Amino acid sequence: MRMIDLIEKKRDGKALSAAEISGFVQALCAGEIPDYQTAALLMAITLKGMNRAETVALTRAMAGSGDMPDLSDICAYAIDKHSSGGVGDKTTLVVLPLVAAFDVPVAKMSGRGLGFGGGTLDKLEAIDGFTVNLSEAEFRRVVKETGMVLAGQSASLAPADGILYALRDVTGTVPSLPLIASSIMSKKLAAGADGIVLDVKLGCGAFMKTLEEARALAQAMVRIGVDAGRDMVALLSDMNQPLGVAAGNALEVAEAVATLRGGGPEDLRAHCVEVAAQMLRLAGQGERWTDIANTRVEVDEVLRSGAAFERFRRMVAAQGGDVRQLDEPSRLPQAKIRYRARAQQSGYIAALYADKIGWATLALGGGRATKESSIDHAVGVEAHANVGDAVQKGDLLLTLHANDETRLNAALTALSGAIVYSDAPVEALPPFYGIIDGTRA
Amino acid sequence: MRMIDLIEKKRDGKALSAAEISGFVQALCAGEIPDYQTAALLMAITLKGMNRAETVALTRAMAGSGDMPDLSDICAYAIDKHSSGGVGDKTTLVVLPLVAAFDVPVAKMSGRGLGFGGGTLDKLEAIDGFTVNLSEAEFRRVVKETGMVLAGQSASLAPADGILYALRDVTGTVPSLPLIASSIMSKKLAAGADGIVLDVKLGCGAFMKTLEEARALAQAMVRIGVDAGRDMVALLSDMNQPLGVAAGNALEVAEAVATLRGGGPEDLRAHCVEVAAQMLRLAGQGERWTDIANTRVEVDEVLRSGAAFERFRRMVAAQGGDVRQLDEPSRLPQAKIRYRARAQQSGYIAALYADKIGWATLALGGGRATKESSIDHAVGVEAHANVGDAVQKGDLLLTLHANDETRLNAALTALSGAIVYSDAPVEALPPFYGIIDGTRA
Repeated sequence: MRMIDLIEKKRDGKALSAAEISGFVQALCAGEIPDYQTAALLMAITLKGMNRAETVALTRAMAGSGDMPDLSDICAYAIDKHSSGGVGDKTTLVVLPLVAAFDVPVAKMSGRGLGFGGGTLDKLEAIDGFTVNLSEAEFRRVVKETGMVLAGQSASLAPADGILYALRDVTGTVPSLPLIASSIMSKKLAAGADGIVLDVKLGCGAFMKTLEEARALAQAMVRIGVDAGRDMVALLSDMNQPLGVAAGNALEVAEAVATLRGGGPEDLRAHCVEVAAQMLRLAGQGERWTDIANTRVEVDEVLRSGAAFERFRRMVAAQGGDVRQLDEPSRLPQAKIRYRARAQQSGYIAALYADKIGWATLALGGGRATKESSIDHAVGVEAHANVGDAVQKGDLLLTLHANDETRLNAALTALSGAIVYSDAPVEALPPFYGIIDGTRA
Repeated sequence: MRMIDLIEKKRDGKALSAAEISGFVQALCAGEIPDYQTAALLMAITLKGMNRAETVALTRAMAGSGDMPDLSDICAYAIDKHSSGGVGDKTTLVVLPLVAAFDVPVAKMSGRGLGFGGGTLDKLEAIDGFTVNLSEAEFRRVVKETGMVLAGQSASLAPADGILYALRDVTGTVPSLPLIASSIMSKKLAAGADGIVLDVKLGCGAFMKTLEEARALAQAMVRIGVDAGRDMVALLSDMNQPLGVAAGNALEVAEAVATLRGGGPEDLRAHCVEVAAQMLRLAGQGERWTDIANTRVEVDEVLRSGAAFERFRRMVAAQGGDVRQLDEPSRLPQAKIRYRARAQQSGYIAALYADKIGWATLALGGGRATKESSIDHAVGVEAHANVGDAVQKGDLLLTLHANDETRLNAALTALSGAIVYSDAPVEALPPFYGIIDGTRA
C-alpha cells in the first residue's frame, strides 16, 4: 500500500477497499504515515465521502487498533448507549442504573465534554471522591458488585480514532459524516457492545442542527453497527431547548438524583424511560421486553420505586464517591451567587435556545473552552420553563449559579435573546422526531 | 488570520480573499504553518478550485515570497517563454538566440527535468564546461556581453512555490489547474518578465492529454499574467509525437545547433520560428513586429543566416562551455551502442507515441526517475519519421543511443507499440491547435 495511491483514489472519488483502509489504519498507528498525507486523505474523504462499506471498514479498523476488552464473563449481553451530546443531557446518569435495576449489567465507558458543558465523567466528578479512572480489574469488580460501572475510556481503546480526531480538529475535517460516524462507532465496537441505543440530538443545542443531518448521522451509525453484527436502534431527539431544567455539573447530578427518586422534570423522566426501554428491548433479544409500550410502563414503575436510585448509590460508593451527597444533594458543590431572571412580559415561550444556555454555562466555568480548561462543578443555569409554556410577567424563568461577578455578566451576555415570547399559543417541542431501527437499516 | 478558518472556507467552496492568501503564503514561508494544515488546504483547493482572482492572488503572493530581480537596466523589455514540457522539446535552445539576434536581450531562468527527459539546463550541461549556476553579477554580465543568458533558477526565486510543490508532490495535489498555473506563473513573475509566450503542449507526451485540458491551463496562465499587468500569449502545440527527431540531451543540442545553422528537422524549425515571432511581437509592443506573417519570414531569414547560431555560440562561451562541440557536434558526448529499428511493414505512420519514446529515453538514462538521479547526456532516441509519413518495410524509423545492453533492452521494452501503421493514408498532426491572445483573455 502506497499512501499516495490511497489519497489519489479518494481524491478522484473512488471507493477504497477494506484492505486499503485497514492497511492505512495500521500504518497510521505504527507512526509510518506523515501527518500531511493523513490530512490530505481526511480532506479528500470530507469532500468526496465514503460509502457504507468504506465507513464500516474504517470503523472496524479503528476499533481493532487497540485493546478490545472481553466482558462476556460479566455481561451475557453487553448493552450500551451513546448520546451525540447536548445541553442538560444527564440521561446516562439516570438510564444506566435504571437498566441495571432490571438485572441487566451495564459497563459503560464515557467521555469528557468540550464546549457547552461537561460530559458524563465531568458530571460524576461533581461528587467528592468519585473516580472515573479505573483499572480493568476495578472496572470488572464494580460491575460485578453493583451491576453497573461508569468509567473513562482507556487510552488503548481505538487509539487510531484518537490520532485521527486530533488531526481532524486542526485541519477542518471534523464535519464529515462518515468520519463522525466511524469515530463514535469505533469506540463502541472496541468496548465490546452487543447492542447500542443511539440518542442522536438535533436542534440549536446539538452538533446536528436539522432533522436531515441528524437522520443521516443516525442512519450511518446504525448501518455501521448492523454491518458489524450489532443490534442497533437510534432515537432522533430534540435539542432546541435544554433537556430537563439544569445545565451544569453538580446541578445535573442533583436533577438526575431527583429523577432516580421518582421526581425530576417530566421531559427528562420521559426521555430516560424511552432510552432505557429501548436498551432493554435490545438486551431482551426478542425474548423479553419485546413490547415497547409495556416496557415503558415497567421502566417507569421501577424508576418510581427507587430501585434505580439504589443501584446508582451503590455504583457511586464502589467508585469512591461520597453517597451522602446523593442522599442530601445540598451537600453537592454550591455556587456563591444565585441570579434569577424573570419573565419580562406575559405570553407564551416560543423559544428557549439551548445553545445560548450552553454558552452561558461555559461562560460561568461549567464547561471547557479548551481541552486543558478546568471545570467549576458548582456553576450552571437552570431553565424553569419549556417552549409552549404560558408565563406571566415576573415568573421565574432562569436561575444562574455563579462563582464570580465577571463570569456572571459574561453568562448574561451569552443569554441575550435566549428566550423568545409569543402572544399567540405555541406548540410544545416534540421530545422525539423519529426512530431508526437497526433491523430495517 | 487563523489557518483553520482558511481551510474551512475553501472546504466549503468559498473564495479566499487576496489578504487571506497573502497572509497564508507569508506564514508558510515563515514556517508558521504545520504541513498537515497546508496539505488539507491544498486538497481542498484541488477539489473545490480557485477563481481567477484567487489564482492571481496566490501567484503574486508566491512571486513576492523571495527575490524579484530587477533587470530593467539590462532589458528595456523583458521577454520570456515557457514550455509546459514534452519529448524532444529543445525549442528554448533555438528560440533564445534567435530573438537575441534581433537585439532583443533575453535573460532566462530555466529548470531541470523530471521523468521523460532532461530540462533545458540538463541539455546545456551536455556541453563540456557549461555552467548554469551563475551569480547575479555573472548573470548580468553574460546578458550584457552576449544579449542572452540561460541559467538555473536561484533558490530565492518564489520560495513559497518550492515549499508548496514539495508538499503537493506527496499529497496527491499536483493535478490542480489553479495550483499548476500559479506555480508556473509565480516563477515567471518573480523573474521579472514583461511579456511571456507560453508553449502549452498537449497529447500523449505532455502533462495535458487533451485540447480541453491544455486550453484551460493556457487560459488560466494567460489570465494570471494579464491580471498582473503582463503581455501574454499562449500557443497550444502538439506533443503526440516528439518535436523534431532527437530525444536525449546531447542529441538535442546537436539538433538545435543544426537548426541554428539553417538545417534541422522541418517541424522543429517551424515551431521555433512561430515561438520567436510571438516573442518579438510582444517585445515590439505594438511598434515593431506587429505583422506576425512578416515577422515569421524575417525570423526564418535570420535563422538561416547563421546570426542566431553566432549568438548561441557567444552565450555558450560566456557561460564556460566548449564551443568546439558546437562547431563539430561529433565532439558532444556519444553513446557506445547504436541500435537501429526499421519499419516492420510498409504503410503510413498512424502514431509515433511521444510518451513511449520519452520513457525509452528515461530507461536509457537520459532522464531522471527521481530528483536525485544523475543523467547520461549521451543517450537518447532518434525518431526519423512523423505521423502521416509513408514508409517502406525496412526503412529506418528509430535510432537508440545506449551505453549499456540492459538499459537498451529496457528502452526497447518501453518502445513496444510506440509505432502504429495504417494501410490507408493518415493525415499529418497539426503543429498547433490554437493560440490564446492575452489581449482578449
